[in-house]
Amino acid sequence: MSRDIEFMAQALQLARLGMYSTSPNPRVGCVLVKNDRVIATGWHQQAGGPHAEIHALREAGAEARGATAYVTLEPCNHTGRTGPCSVALIEAGVARVVCASTDPNPLVAGAGIERLRAAGIGVENGVLETQARALNPGFIKRMTTGLPWVRVKLAQSLDGRTAMASGESQWITGADARRDVQRWRARSCAVLTGSGTVKVDNPSLTVRESLIGFTPVRQPLRVVLDRQLSTDPMSSVYDDSAPTLIISAVTDVDKRFPVRVETCRIPSSENWLREVLAELGRRGYNEIMVEAGATLAGAFMGAGLVDELIVYTAPKLLGSDARPLMTLPLASMAEAVALELTDLRQIGVDIRLIYQIKEH
Amino acid sequence: MSRDIEFMAQALQLARLGMYSTSPNPRVGCVLVKNDRVIATGWHQQAGGPHAEIHALREAGAEARGATAYVTLEPCNHTGRTGPCSVALIEAGVARVVCASTDPNPLVAGAGIERLRAAGIGVENGVLETQARALNPGFIKRMTTGLPWVRVKLAQSLDGRTAMASGESQWITGADARRDVQRWRARSCAVLTGSGTVKVDNPSLTVRESLIGFTPVRQPLRVVLDRQLSTDPMSSVYDDSAPTLIISAVTDVDKRFPVRVETCRIPSSENWLREVLAELGRRGYNEIMVEAGATLAGAFMGAGLVDELIVYTAPKLLGSDARPLMTLPLASMAEAVALELTDLRQIGVDIRLIYQIKEH
Repeated sequence: MSRDIEFMAQALQLARLGMYSTSPNPRVGCVLVKNDRVIATGWHQQAGGPHAEIHALREAGAEARGATAYVTLEPCNHTGRTGPCSVALIEAGVARVVCASTDPNPLVAGAGIERLRAAGIGVENGVLETQARALNPGFIKRMTTGLPWVRVKLAQSLDGRTAMASGESQWITGADARRDVQRWRARSCAVLTGSGTVKVDNPSLTVRESLIGFTPVRQPLRVVLDRQLSTDPMSSVYDDSAPTLIISAVTDVDKRFPVRVETCRIPSSENWLREVLAELGRRGYNEIMVEAGATLAGAFMGAGLVDELIVYTAPKLLGSDARPLMTLPLASMAEAVALELTDLRQIGVDIRLIYQIKEH
Repeated sequence: MSRDIEFMAQALQLARLGMYSTSPNPRVGCVLVKNDRVIATGWHQQAGGPHAEIHALREAGAEARGATAYVTLEPCNHTGRTGPCSVALIEAGVARVVCASTDPNPLVAGAGIERLRAAGIGVENGVLETQARALNPGFIKRMTTGLPWVRVKLAQSLDGRTAMASGESQWITGADARRDVQRWRARSCAVLTGSGTVKVDNPSLTVRESLIGFTPVRQPLRVVLDRQLSTDPMSSVYDDSAPTLIISAVTDVDKRFPVRVETCRIPSSENWLREVLAELGRRGYNEIMVEAGATLAGAFMGAGLVDELIVYTAPKLLGSDARPLMTLPLASMAEAVALELTDLRQIGVDIRLIYQIKEH
């Protein structure tokens, strides 16, 4: 039915309300419709809290009987705090269920839909699927590969430079772009940087309420890749304003990091960065934002571990002696990394480009 | 009056019809309005042909009496083939004249308006002035400084690279971007390149009808900067498909360029590039498009001679060993070239960024 798209779009809008709070769970929205009217809505707000369907069913009460449920993700079929959503929909007497996408976990995908169908409920799937999947890139990637979605944020001049040869770099982009970065940080499960950036820039890597315009539900985990544990324990990234995880390749030598800072050792190997991501995946982190220097960003890119690039480009030329966007040695056009533009907009005086990596 | 803007917008649309043909004259449009109705229109089509006002007056005939004339540029006051437009408007009995902008030539600016006022005609000036001036950047710059408008076209990867270290570069951008370049070429009075590009890429630098989708009224002049006359006389840029001017710093050594190719010698000096532009200005070229390599583009930029940058950015990373956007050695952020974004759009898989240079 043509109105399916309209109601699913509304469910997607609801799902988006969970942008900054649902992790490690996905963002999910639900709309209950009866006689072409929306009778109740719900969205998943926080892990541990009710799923989107439960919120909507509670709001609808007895009215749910005979309604159509629009859900942006296949209803779960496992028993959590509130029992499976599939069962809740059946018990409420919902007549029809429209889903945008199936559960990305290949081991459980389809089970919720099967349960509904077995109960005699008509189920349609795949309405606005692309949009629904775009809402949860990290959850989907983690469920299908075990690795989080890796988004690398960079700020460059028009000529692809991030700093002068001397290292001078503040500020390349304007205040609006820096504020926008905060929103990406806020939606991330973790913000990852390298020891070099900690030493040179000493960033705090927290989400600042004054910059995003709302109170963040949680601070993303700060992850510092510090193979040799060479960073200063007094660095801002180790302060108490957010949780921090140091990933090293050695065991603590002589250093005392604050007790609130967790240290995790992953032995050095050729695939070290991949193992770092696997560890973050095991810990339930969906979206990782890499805010690092040219070396670490280039290492992730060169290892084929990047899913998305967010590049703020400032209206400046820093010249041909300035530092490159990332350290990435390639010899021929055949080795060039192919990207696909997914978003393009002006942010203050700068522009913001979002690309997904097409070929690694 | 509020409708002034509407009618002037229509005159500007007409002026745009001359985008590819009026040089060395400006693009100008004219609308004649009586009782709030457009009774005649005109636009300047080609140097030597009638001005926009004359076209409109001829179309209106006796109806012009009592009408309001909307002209995107102050009517001329000098005697050409058809006498001054100011006099033609007076003789036709036009009651009111609305201009978008005065003549940019400071020596004659205002004279046309004065003549009209002296004849008792009410004149208003400055309606949609910004838009009108944007139509003729080259004419305005040449009239006020003697130099043409210099637009540098570049094609780069997202990371600001134009070729691999080996020189390999075809193709960075896609077919749509390359087609778009043809339109900018078609509106230019001259397309300028350096001896290096002629030797390495051997481009023809002509406007191809099949790519722009219409028959070009004229081919832009091809200008080759070849200080030492070191290019091969058999290069494509010297073929008979368009006029070509070689600018050298030496007199012809032993080389025989085709007779249709003009050679102009400008003795070497510190300001050689500025003198090249001054020569092109003297010859009546308004808009110059520089399609050159990193060295010449960087030399123009470093000398503060660039007005506008058109940068096609491809969805690719060529890596940190690849060649820079332009050879431009700068030491500190204070020396960075400040730009101002004036247009941003997607062209096929690439994006096109247009900047004006804010500080030289």
